[in-house]
Amino acid sequence: MPQLRIALAQVNACAGDISGNSSMVLDWTRRAVREGAHVVAFPEMVLSGYPVEDLALRKSFAAANRSEVDALALRLHEAGCGDAVVVVGHLDRDDEGVRNAASLLHGGEVVTTYYKHHLPNYGVFDEARYFAPGYDLPIVRLHGVDIGVVICEDIWQNGGPVTALGRVGVDAVVCINGSPYELAKDDQRTPLVTRRAAEAGAPMAYVNLVGAQDELVFDGDSLIATPEGGILARAPQFVEHLMVHDLDLTGGGHTSTDTSPEPVEEGTPLHFRPGALPAFDVERITLQPEPLPIYEPMPLPSTPEPLSDVAEVWSALVTGVRDYAHKNGFRSVTFGFSGGIDSAVCAALTADALGPDALYGVSMPSKYSTEHSRSDAAELARRLGCHFEEHPVGDMVEMFVDRLGLTGLAEENVQARCRGVTVMALSNQHGHLVLTPGNKTELAVGYSTIYGDSVGGFAPIKDVPKTLVWRLARWRNAEAEKRGETPPIPENSISKAPSAELRPGQVDTDSLPPYETLDEILDGYVEGDHSYADLVAAGFDADLVERVLQMVDRSEYKRRQYPPGTKISLKAFGRDRRLPVTNRWREVRP
Amino acid sequence: MPQLRIALAQVNACAGDISGNSSMVLDWTRRAVREGAHVVAFPEMVLSGYPVEDLALRKSFAAANRSEVDALALRLHEAGCGDAVVVVGHLDRDDEGVRNAASLLHGGEVVTTYYKHHLPNYGVFDEARYFAPGYDLPIVRLHGVDIGVVICEDIWQNGGPVTALGRVGVDAVVCINGSPYELAKDDQRTPLVTRRAAEAGAPMAYVNLVGAQDELVFDGDSLIATPEGGILARAPQFVEHLMVHDLDLTGGGHTSTDTSPEPVEEGTPLHFRPGALPAFDVERITLQPEPLPIYEPMPLPSTPEPLSDVAEVWSALVTGVRDYAHKNGFRSVTFGFSGGIDSAVCAALTADALGPDALYGVSMPSKYSTEHSRSDAAELARRLGCHFEEHPVGDMVEMFVDRLGLTGLAEENVQARCRGVTVMALSNQHGHLVLTPGNKTELAVGYSTIYGDSVGGFAPIKDVPKTLVWRLARWRNAEAEKRGETPPIPENSISKAPSAELRPGQVDTDSLPPYETLDEILDGYVEGDHSYADLVAAGFDADLVERVLQMVDRSEYKRRQYPPGTKISLKAFGRDRRLPVTNRWREVRP
Repeated sequence: MPQLRIALAQVNACAGDISGNSSMVLDWTRRAVREGAHVVAFPEMVLSGYPVEDLALRKSFAAANRSEVDALALRLHEAGCGDAVVVVGHLDRDDEGVRNAASLLHGGEVVTTYYKHHLPNYGVFDEARYFAPGYDLPIVRLHGVDIGVVICEDIWQNGGPVTALGRVGVDAVVCINGSPYELAKDDQRTPLVTRRAAEAGAPMAYVNLVGAQDELVFDGDSLIATPEGGILARAPQFVEHLMVHDLDLTGGGHTSTDTSPEPVEEGTPLHFRPGALPAFDVERITLQPEPLPIYEPMPLPSTPEPLSDVAEVWSALVTGVRDYAHKNGFRSVTFGFSGGIDSAVCAALTADALGPDALYGVSMPSKYSTEHSRSDAAELARRLGCHFEEHPVGDMVEMFVDRLGLTGLAEENVQARCRGVTVMALSNQHGHLVLTPGNKTELAVGYSTIYGDSVGGFAPIKDVPKTLVWRLARWRNAEAEKRGETPPIPENSISKAPSAELRPGQVDTDSLPPYETLDEILDGYVEGDHSYADLVAAGFDADLVERVLQMVDRSEYKRRQYPPGTKISLKAFGRDRRLPVTNRWREVRP
Repeated sequence: MPQLRIALAQVNACAGDISGNSSMVLDWTRRAVREGAHVVAFPEMVLSGYPVEDLALRKSFAAANRSEVDALALRLHEAGCGDAVVVVGHLDRDDEGVRNAASLLHGGEVVTTYYKHHLPNYGVFDEARYFAPGYDLPIVRLHGVDIGVVICEDIWQNGGPVTALGRVGVDAVVCINGSPYELAKDDQRTPLVTRRAAEAGAPMAYVNLVGAQDELVFDGDSLIATPEGGILARAPQFVEHLMVHDLDLTGGGHTSTDTSPEPVEEGTPLHFRPGALPAFDVERITLQPEPLPIYEPMPLPSTPEPLSDVAEVWSALVTGVRDYAHKNGFRSVTFGFSGGIDSAVCAALTADALGPDALYGVSMPSKYSTEHSRSDAAELARRLGCHFEEHPVGDMVEMFVDRLGLTGLAEENVQARCRGVTVMALSNQHGHLVLTPGNKTELAVGYSTIYGDSVGGFAPIKDVPKTLVWRLARWRNAEAEKRGETPPIPENSISKAPSAELRPGQVDTDSLPPYETLDEILDGYVEGDHSYADLVAAGFDADLVERVLQMVDRSEYKRRQYPPGTKISLKAFGRDRRLPVTNRWREVRP
């Protein structure tokens, strides 16, 4: 029974920041080696960051990645970590094209590089756009243990490299991932990893990115699964974590390299079917053939308490705000405090993410703003302990309305736009990041003002339906009460009827159905790909379904942002390309 | 020598407007049949429109497409067009996934359907995201002639279905296309079509979409090429056109269906390599085995004069404005007339696209606006004969500046944003589409105000570098002079130094290098994927290159909008997902 100590480094990489990410890998490897790890695995694309989108196609970026991998191997060796095998994800480029790669570093060198076989190209993924698929299967023998490596989507498709590893024989599989968070994703991930471990006939060590990158949030949730279906160890979600674990491994001494295709399951893409795929090219590399002398294994790490669904969503949103601000170099945040529930939840999220001192709330009443809006906004700021100013927009609104002769919707929108001008001016003057507090429901039906309440660099709850916004508010207040703290969100902001307050006595239900019903219909139409006929058959009022579907069909978000089958992924900006993205990479200057 | 009269219907389809597009196919087929056509070919995805993006994934949309194809076959038959073979592009869906399909309609039925083999997934294309590839090769025999069908990208990749058609034997190939315009694309297209005709050993009839759809412009340029390298006929660019032509064809009587793979050229994607691709499945369908009695061919259509590069660009931009407005249901357009060159060119484009009566120019001076800006704007309106109003923004700007204590860049941006509020208010009040006159150079270096001069639904010259904007202006004025008309663009707007006029005496060269140099560096960095080192080696000043690259790297457009290798495609919005897109499709209601 050869032993192996494996460390999974669940870290937060920044897209484009090659040298920063590389230093992080060095630091964490040192820690892991101090704890005696023989293998240290980092997530997918940890050196380049993920996703890097069209930056992947730039030749000089690929060259910078490649030279950093070589330099990192040497630095690890010089730092005394050369005996460990370090698995590092990075972008690469060869004659076939750009690659999503995993290199194994050892003894100051890149021992071998695996190229991702399966390239996801659905939902938030566009990998077929950027990468050429790999067909090689390197397996390294370390301390008498045969270790295979795969990358993320490789385990989400049937008939892939893990099946082949199982056929030729390995003792452990390392799977490195950039697997974005979706609501209840662990319900899919855990059985999948154990199923692949069973196919490989060996434990699978699954390490995932953590933190947010632009429109995506990564939850970590790294784990080690046995081929018998057990979970040996699991890392907490949404925090950086080094998980070190001793494996007792069977076997060793595998020699087969024959992976000739055999029948695969129904539903496999055509080009991965038997006869369509060249046999994988297995390369066996021996680093240290003999097992280690038997040693005392480390005590088992404690398994974290699983988070409730609402707690998980809250953590994802906090992560999104924190990393978008930090990775883009912002130290403070501003947006309008309307007294309503959306801005209140965004404020509480921001205070949790960046601290109340980084938050500059602005109340911007117009002549239609109610007294309770102003007082609820002030109360929110008081509870959070954040900065707060009032900048009424009524005079500017009146000037635009009079000079341009505005009525109706044009007059309503000018109020929202004068608020947009105000927060953007404060941002330009003081360097704050502007947040956009719109929720998914109002975006889906077009209930917002473009260049008005929609201005901003990051929209924390853009993928959160209105009914979930309320649940989050109640949950966060209850958590505060449990801890003996002041609940951050004023009760009145939760309980009052939502209103845009752009004309006298206006409430959302003047224009929209009740949010409970609206969210159910939207969930069916947008996420479930249900048709009009499906929804009516499910018991919704036909006229109401017609009305909601027309709102969605007319909204600018229909075609781009909510492809059918999308889940609540809490990605910060969906597929909206409106706003800046983190890109720390700069051309290397002499 | 069997004869065949073929009609290529170079039409303008609208994304999502299935029933409108279907009626158009019926009308144009009637015209073609009146002219005696035996085969009538329509462009790629003519029934669904192209591109439909994530709408492709919606089940009810696919079902609506499929039922419309069946209904159309019947309607064509009832309209007396049942003897012709009508080739119609549309979206389809089967167990393998969503398909980019070409159906052959004849005798009231769908005789066969071809699924596109090669799915482009680069540049403006995301087809691997939406479609499953086909492997079938239907060939129909009509009047003793064997006709194969392929779709667009199928001819842009080596070793594809055209090679296979050549091997099994056909007498003519119909290629239906949704091939977007790029500068000088005909230099690639013509040799490609003739090369594939040679591979097929048969003439190729190439029919392309015309008109604009959201971010893409299609130029038509349909043609018929011989296997010997000649062009038999060619349609004009940027206009709808029915091209009818008689073919004298050799052969007939092909029977082979053996397409077993043979070596293909270097550079072919791995999954299309020998052994990786199942042999194509050839299906031969006989509709009418015997050649027609010999008839007198039609006189040859005249070949259009090729357009100059600048004329081609102007036509593409006019097409973009016209179709974006029309397909989105706008009858009028507004934007700021600054007196500068960008808004002057956009105004002339709009007048050409929609007529001067649809154009509402607005001058919005602030205290830093010069007298010549106001007079040049008024002069532009006078020359074009469009509507024109002046709405000064100085008072609103002053109020924001005073109340919020704004200085420097914040003060500059507030002027641009008060103009944004003004044009959006006029749009809301009067129903105009707002255009955004920013050019590609300023977008690439971030020289514009978000929510200020960047507001609007469509940016006509967003993909046009500044130096080309000047060339277009001079060209359009010269054209007017040739025709004895008033040149639309005031000479002073062309000749004066560009300025944002957001502070006293400001000119663009305060912040930017001269535009001639800037555009050369941008072309190298953005379009050419040249690195810093490449550009310095090419002779540009090192400090200047550093400065420009930093501006681009910091701009929000870097990663998303200008992947390396993009050409000037004059696509209206690049890959920017900010703004509404045409979507005429609505769920079918009972």
